[in-house]
Amino acid sequence: MSTGHHEASWRLPESDPSYRSTDIAYLQRLAQTAERGHLDSIFFADGPALFRDVGRRPSGTLEPTVVLAAIAAVTSRIGLIATASTTYNDPYNLARRFASVDHISGGRAGWNIVTTAHLEAARNFGRDDLPSHRSRYERAAEFIDVALKLWDSWEDDVEIGDKEAGVWGDPARIHPPEHVGEHFRVAGALTTPRSPQAYPLLVQAGSSDDGKDLAARYAEAVFTAQQTLDDALAFATDLKRRAVEWGRDPAGLLVLPGIVPVIGATEAEARAKEEELDRLIRPEYARAQLAKTLRVDPDDLPLDRELPADLPSEDEIEGAKSRYTLIVELARRERLTVRQLIGRLGGGRGHRTFSGTAEQVADAIQEWWDAGAADGFNIMPAVLPSGLEDFVDQVVPVLVDRGLFRREYTGTTLRDHYGLARPAHPHDRTGGRDIGRVATTTSTTHQGAHA
Amino acid sequence: MSTGHHEASWRLPESDPSYRSTDIAYLQRLAQTAERGHLDSIFFADGPALFRDVGRRPSGTLEPTVVLAAIAAVTSRIGLIATASTTYNDPYNLARRFASVDHISGGRAGWNIVTTAHLEAARNFGRDDLPSHRSRYERAAEFIDVALKLWDSWEDDVEIGDKEAGVWGDPARIHPPEHVGEHFRVAGALTTPRSPQAYPLLVQAGSSDDGKDLAARYAEAVFTAQQTLDDALAFATDLKRRAVEWGRDPAGLLVLPGIVPVIGATEAEARAKEEELDRLIRPEYARAQLAKTLRVDPDDLPLDRELPADLPSEDEIEGAKSRYTLIVELARRERLTVRQLIGRLGGGRGHRTFSGTAEQVADAIQEWWDAGAADGFNIMPAVLPSGLEDFVDQVVPVLVDRGLFRREYTGTTLRDHYGLARPAHPHDRTGGRDIGRVATTTSTTHQGAHA
Ligand SMILES: Cc1cc2nc3c(=O)[nH]c(=O)nc-3n(C[C@H](O)[C@H](O)[C@H](O)COP(=O)(O)O)c2cc1C
Ligand SMILES: Cc1cc2nc3c(=O)[nH]c(=O)nc-3n(C[C@H](O)[C@H](O)[C@H](O)COP(=O)(O)O)c2cc1C
Repeated sequence: MSTGHHEASWRLPESDPSYRSTDIAYLQRLAQTAERGHLDSIFFADGPALFRDVGRRPSGTLEPTVVLAAIAAVTSRIGLIATASTTYNDPYNLARRFASVDHISGGRAGWNIVTTAHLEAARNFGRDDLPSHRSRYERAAEFIDVALKLWDSWEDDVEIGDKEAGVWGDPARIHPPEHVGEHFRVAGALTTPRSPQAYPLLVQAGSSDDGKDLAARYAEAVFTAQQTLDDALAFATDLKRRAVEWGRDPAGLLVLPGIVPVIGATEAEARAKEEELDRLIRPEYARAQLAKTLRVDPDDLPLDRELPADLPSEDEIEGAKSRYTLIVELARRERLTVRQLIGRLGGGRGHRTFSGTAEQVADAIQEWWDAGAADGFNIMPAVLPSGLEDFVDQVVPVLVDRGLFRREYTGTTLRDHYGLARPAHPHDRTGGRDIGRVATTTSTTHQGAHA
Repeated sequence: MSTGHHEASWRLPESDPSYRSTDIAYLQRLAQTAERGHLDSIFFADGPALFRDVGRRPSGTLEPTVVLAAIAAVTSRIGLIATASTTYNDPYNLARRFASVDHISGGRAGWNIVTTAHLEAARNFGRDDLPSHRSRYERAAEFIDVALKLWDSWEDDVEIGDKEAGVWGDPARIHPPEHVGEHFRVAGALTTPRSPQAYPLLVQAGSSDDGKDLAARYAEAVFTAQQTLDDALAFATDLKRRAVEWGRDPAGLLVLPGIVPVIGATEAEARAKEEELDRLIRPEYARAQLAKTLRVDPDDLPLDRELPADLPSEDEIEGAKSRYTLIVELARRERLTVRQLIGRLGGGRGHRTFSGTAEQVADAIQEWWDAGAADGFNIMPAVLPSGLEDFVDQVVPVLVDRGLFRREYTGTTLRDHYGLARPAHPHDRTGGRDIGRVATTTSTTHQGAHA
């Protein structure tokens, strides 16, 4: 929702809720603001289904790869990350689209790989049921394998361009995947030459056991929702250990927890903003959604009581496992009532919310950075565009002064911003992937739909 | 191929064959040139497969919807038509992407609906064989039905925006398709609000019997390859008759034959240009492709003989039926040798080629327009960008002077340019579709891949 990540942000006097998510000029300006702050990227969440809450909050999203192409045309450095589902796409079409965005943007594309946990999506693609969690992740792994083969189906230097002889390219430098697998059979090479980054930065955003394994195997960056420093540290440690098990350099896998900042001139002002936002949540809708996530009846969730004692275990959840566990643990740990829990989820949908001055927000970021719990952060302002402007104009300078963030862009591609090397073509590889060290706090601004 | 529609255009001294089709700045400039000439639209052919002729000519294309989104950002009026296959896409994803391009461009999107006749494409989507011609067209019809339901799944005025009450939209104005059909089951509404044009202009480009029926039923514009005025007139008459049979106003279905102009300061100069291009074709490659299309052995096609007498009938062709027939009829009618036929196909791939002065090109256009054989033309310059610049700078002014073409854009959407009304929502419709009369010659410039 483009009026901000807080679900009630559209009800503030400053917000214009008229289809902002479909207003490309608005989205382009947000990206330009993020670029002014030298953030690494702008990120769009996504899912191929409309949720039944148009009554409750601004709905309506555009398909993010085309949005990013339009943003690419009016920006020059900022990375462009779109979410796309491996469950409801074909590898040939999707690999091609991301390669195209990478060409169009001069190497700024990223793909947030998700398996899509919603039954509503399944029902838009010929199914009555949600495919099982396990099968979605199995398909995701094969999907990425195929996509990588497609992105490597052209060597970097196919073109010969011999006008005299009438020979344009060298067919020997084209390598059709001829992939035959459990979920996919894809014979031919991509239509699209190898792109500036070779392929989009691979981002992953599922935190279940299977999700973490997928990330450890393929991802270069992971978006994650973590409420406490301890949890974030445990998550990062676990993920990097798994990456090592997959034979990877853990420095090539960046962990980027979300943070929902509410910035005020004083701490009291920031808190008052956050309280106003929470007051504007309509609890009956939020409770219905919570009941669906927890698989209980809404009547079993009285607003001023804690969660019921007998809830399903994560094993029984076929949808978004890690989100389920995060919600239950948050409520139990802080002994939140349903109303309080709804406030926390409405603000950051499971992500860490933080209200304070710009200095305090910078402290909150630095604390996790210094502890090694984060390689960067996904900045999800509660209110947009003002929250992003505040972050760029007030928090970024503090981080720069502390030597934690870049003063200027030093590279041109998204992997440059993250300190990662361009993947070599398999035919040119001398060893494993050459992955640089990350020296700065990286920041992203998160846009869009239903996480 | 973005150095021009003539397959040898890349070999000219003026051409830069370095991946021009993937150079977004180049494609954006082409679109801006077309917009300077007030052309209706820029059009990208497409297919999800790489053909095995990287040796022969520049290869490599980007996915066209993302290209058009990037072009939308640097243009304001020109229509943006992308080809997409109903055989290798899902209706939910594709409908959403075109709706998104329509939003991003302020109502300038068009969809060239094709069923994709190539085995290479099938093999990139889990199949060993090409689905039959009939089944592809059946799927296409259902695909369009579903897409139309999705585009109508939001009424125009879903938003209420009552901040006070916390009510954003009216769920009663959302109409999930709940489609259950032979090829597709799609339950839910689009994520994307109804777009400026309601949905993209529907264009069709198959000319077989099934292709014409699909066009007559759904299309608002048809791209077609016609070699002679008689054929073009018969085609247009047939198509409009079929539209009437489907209960439509034939004025709502524009017929746009392709023309490949080669413009010179004198007729002799234009002819010399065309001859130089034909000389640069490498006949052995072109013959191999022709043999594949005709389903004969290349050795049975000596370059300086006419086509063999015993060729399959159109009924036996499961690929591109109308293209097959066009080629055979052209060769027989003009008694062309294989070498001559290859020259004609290399120049315009079956489209009408015409070399002459700007006045003569305008005459060639006017002749078909006056005869009622065309409602507009798909301008496919043999060489790009120079051929498009020549057309815009030299031919357009002649057409404007003759009162055959607009001096300025009068509307903002692609349907405005074509003189067509915005489709009403089914809930608002008072009668059939309200379709305006077309008063001007419409022109398009054709980009890209394999027609
Ligand atoms: C910051 C963030 C953004 C996400 N965005 C999306 C999204 O856009 N679409 C989606 O389907 N899932 C998204 N997810 C992932 C899932 O909603 C979620 O992580 C879920 O748990 C599925 O994976 P899991 O079962 O492995 O946890 C996002 C997760 C995070 C942390
Ligand atoms: C101007 C023009 C452009 C076309 N572009 C494409 C295209 O981009 N991709 C495609 O698969 N088919 C394209 N086609 C359609 C088919 O190649 C061709 O018309 C074929 O005959 C398939 O339909 P048919 O069997 O009904 O004739 C195009 C046709 C025309 C006339």
